[in-house]
Amino acid sequence: MPKKHAIGIDLGGTYLRAALVSDTGEVLHKTKKPSSDRIIEALGESITEIGPSGVAGIGIGIAGLVDRKKGLVSISPNMRAVEGVEVVKEVGDRFGVPVKMENDANAAALGERTWGAGGEFENFVLLTLGTGIGGGIVHRGSLIEVPAEIGHMSINSESEKCSCGNRGCLENYASARAMVSKAISFMEKGSESILRDCCKGNIYKVTPEDIYKAALDGDALAREILKDAGRYLGVGIANIINLMSPDAIILAGGLIGAWNIYVQEAVREASRRAFKDLFDAVQIIPSSLGDDAGTIGAACLVFRSISGDAADL
Amino acid sequence: MPKKHAIGIDLGGTYLRAALVSDTGEVLHKTKKPSSDRIIEALGESITEIGPSGVAGIGIGIAGLVDRKKGLVSISPNMRAVEGVEVVKEVGDRFGVPVKMENDANAAALGERTWGAGGEFENFVLLTLGTGIGGGIVHRGSLIEVPAEIGHMSINSESEKCSCGNRGCLENYASARAMVSKAISFMEKGSESILRDCCKGNIYKVTPEDIYKAALDGDALAREILKDAGRYLGVGIANIINLMSPDAIILAGGLIGAWNIYVQEAVREASRRAFKDLFDAVQIIPSSLGDDAGTIGAACLVFRSISGDAADL
Repeated sequence: MPKKHAIGIDLGGTYLRAALVSDTGEVLHKTKKPSSDRIIEALGESITEIGPSGVAGIGIGIAGLVDRKKGLVSISPNMRAVEGVEVVKEVGDRFGVPVKMENDANAAALGERTWGAGGEFENFVLLTLGTGIGGGIVHRGSLIEVPAEIGHMSINSESEKCSCGNRGCLENYASARAMVSKAISFMEKGSESILRDCCKGNIYKVTPEDIYKAALDGDALAREILKDAGRYLGVGIANIINLMSPDAIILAGGLIGAWNIYVQEAVREASRRAFKDLFDAVQIIPSSLGDDAGTIGAACLVFRSISGDAADL
Repeated sequence: MPKKHAIGIDLGGTYLRAALVSDTGEVLHKTKKPSSDRIIEALGESITEIGPSGVAGIGIGIAGLVDRKKGLVSISPNMRAVEGVEVVKEVGDRFGVPVKMENDANAAALGERTWGAGGEFENFVLLTLGTGIGGGIVHRGSLIEVPAEIGHMSINSESEKCSCGNRGCLENYASARAMVSKAISFMEKGSESILRDCCKGNIYKVTPEDIYKAALDGDALAREILKDAGRYLGVGIANIINLMSPDAIILAGGLIGAWNIYVQEAVREASRRAFKDLFDAVQIIPSSLGDDAGTIGAACLVFRSISGDAADL
């Protein structure tokens, strides 16, 4: 009997998602846990919970620079604990099935290309908007197997240092972590906001969801934080448009839940900055696989390697 | 007799270069003139001077966003006079041979890929460093036919407005025009420099060559201007490395004459900013075709269209 299922893992800075995915892209079963510094143990638990018996393999999308030859992540500014861990070998040894690994945003781009919003675009850039900001580039229908660290593009070159070593990285202005850190900083300085009522008054526990909810309730600080992050995202999107002129920019990740404030502001800012002809030619759209893009794309790594579609993956 | 020669044109903000190029990439004859706002007349004169008789076609590399369908440049921040002019039709009607047109940096990338320093790299980004800054991207051995307006990537998003409509574009910090404008501005404010002795004391006539010569003579202002521009170029190069992780970045254009100051500073800055693993994997090298990269690449457009190698070009 052919093995028609694979396990897809999506491991970012905030969540570890796992799913049993069919070879038609259907999610049959899934789990979601907070990310843990005990990478291998956490992966093992999630895989066991999904049930690895009879699967064709395990695909792992993981935040950071993936060294495919060594089967590990060499640098991950948002998840230092994973750096250097031989993920592919350790998971492979434990479960005895083929293990494929890619950068998480690349995996999501592959998922969207294969079974999602990227199906109709030969050339698109996918951005994951969450704790950090990641990117995946599809050109002529195929994933370009480079890290595409769009979150670490400097947009304010003389500004503060990023954990990656660069200065003024997009991620420090437009990510969920940037928003939270800005909210805390404003509240520390005494800004009025209903965000203070969240988490029983412990301002250090404010979440991106709290900020979005407060913004919807009309809170001025929360709205300004979301719109400001959106404007910076727009700077990054304009840079991508001017550099690569894709047919589409597909937005994925937790922050697209704030589409009506954050993303709309980004689109507006990008329209002001990008070459008009190029902006007019690009569609900026949400991921259609939503939170499943990463796990479905990770499972895709397994199916593609079986079918031989992508020797590089 | 097969037509084995083509005319290649390289039209940037400063010079109009034309060359008779063989189908083995040899430059048989060439001319160079200052760019003119009378685009069609200037092209006609250069082509006539080279001698269009018996050529397979005319390839034109031109600064700006090329609309291939209409055969014109829609936007050219450094050469407004060319915008909307039906270059392909007018040149084709006058000379009665096939005319192909591309962005000038894309043409140079194609030239370097076919007969230059890009021959050994499957994935590289070429930057033209001159009046403005342009880019061409080669992926898996083929030119990606997008504008790649790397000079209009914002690196200081809150900074001054660029002529393209964006803010803080790389070109405004790292191009020849940026250096000249900075030199003038410093001299207007009274800065001491041997640059004042150039052009019979008319500081508004200072050239990039003057700045480089003064820097070699130890002039502090000139050195600082070159190094500063180099540092910003390094920001741009780091962004490209983090975004695309190419095997090589090939630098072309007039400014690479200042390799020992300007480019060295850029490489140093990029090494500080880019992900270390990605920086270590990239070679930053000069164009091997030099000033001929653009004309040779433009001629390549003709040869490729004859051989059917590139349906898109």
